[in-house]
Amino acid sequence: MSASAKRVVWELPAWIEAELDLTRALRSDEEKMRLAIEVARRNIDRGGGPFGAAIVNGETGAVLSVGANWVVPQRSSLLHAEIAAIAFAQVALESYSLASGAYELIASSEPCIQCLGATVWSGVRRLVCGAGVAAAEAIGFDEGPRRDDWVSQLETRGIGVRLGVLASEAEAVLAEYGKRGKPVYAVTRIP
Amino acid sequence: MSASAKRVVWELPAWIEAELDLTRALRSDEEKMRLAIEVARRNIDRGGGPFGAAIVNGETGAVLSVGANWVVPQRSSLLHAEIAAIAFAQVALESYSLASGAYELIASSEPCIQCLGATVWSGVRRLVCGAGVAAAEAIGFDEGPRRDDWVSQLETRGIGVRLGVLASEAEAVLAEYGKRGKPVYAVTRIP
Repeated sequence: MSASAKRVVWELPAWIEAELDLTRALRSDEEKMRLAIEVARRNIDRGGGPFGAAIVNGETGAVLSVGANWVVPQRSSLLHAEIAAIAFAQVALESYSLASGAYELIASSEPCIQCLGATVWSGVRRLVCGAGVAAAEAIGFDEGPRRDDWVSQLETRGIGVRLGVLASEAEAVLAEYGKRGKPVYAVTRIP
Repeated sequence: MSASAKRVVWELPAWIEAELDLTRALRSDEEKMRLAIEVARRNIDRGGGPFGAAIVNGETGAVLSVGANWVVPQRSSLLHAEIAAIAFAQVALESYSLASGAYELIASSEPCIQCLGATVWSGVRRLVCGAGVAAAEAIGFDEGPRRDDWVSQLETRGIGVRLGVLASEAEAVLAEYGKRGKPVYAVTRIP
């Protein structure tokens, strides 16, 4: 086994805190989504994927974490925006569960199957999504084998779901990424 | 936003390399599964969950990484065995994709929905599973909203799947964990 793989380290890029105001309370779903979309938009200028996410306390509006798709720059297929937001949030709380507060996962696009699963185990109480799956698929991304009833499956597990918040703004970031011909890291693609 | 959450660090526990022989080539699925089960078994004595995994090169038999469920000890709901194995493997290869070699993901239990998704994006060519989903559910774990046709969904994406390798040995570790009354970190549970 490789002697080099004793640690996995994911870093929050410096521009996140340098360029974004993360101290302001975000009250409406639209305010929260604007942050996730802004993260996605800025991320594509830094070699990342066109997806942003945040964990926000639904009672106080406080931002606990943000994440973006850092698959390519941080060399991990796991590092989708939602995964990053959950990972940094759990470091902030020093807990494997976000269930201690009214935490919500805000995602600039509907989750792929990996992130849908991560949402279930994270302890968040709500999932708020921007762009629809068609917009991600239109530029070559595959959301994976999700169930058609994934929304009600999450609701059954106590997680509220709202789709389509600022969808056209979120989808514009995906379209821009597609226009630039950026990598879709098509590791496994449906033939 | 919390100033503390600038990095996410996952550590390979020292006992993995101290106690397991990871230099031997593993040729058959049964040999590979024996490693994953041994990791699961030893992990429950260290406060981890009863799940083990490995990434093995199917052509050479070399072990690229191992992982176990470290949700509780490393305080991340993401840290299932398969996620850990993929994360450490990609650090070892310094790549977000394992598609450069004939890598296989060996999992002591069938993947939950998060890990099923992670498998799709990881670049592995095969997924080999031990214990069936019923054995995990019998001690309180929820695999999440997987599709009934998840195996063929993976095969469609170019990933071979084999289930039930050394199933009874793998299921014995789950039963032992259940007997000890260890945490099932029931963050979100079906009522």
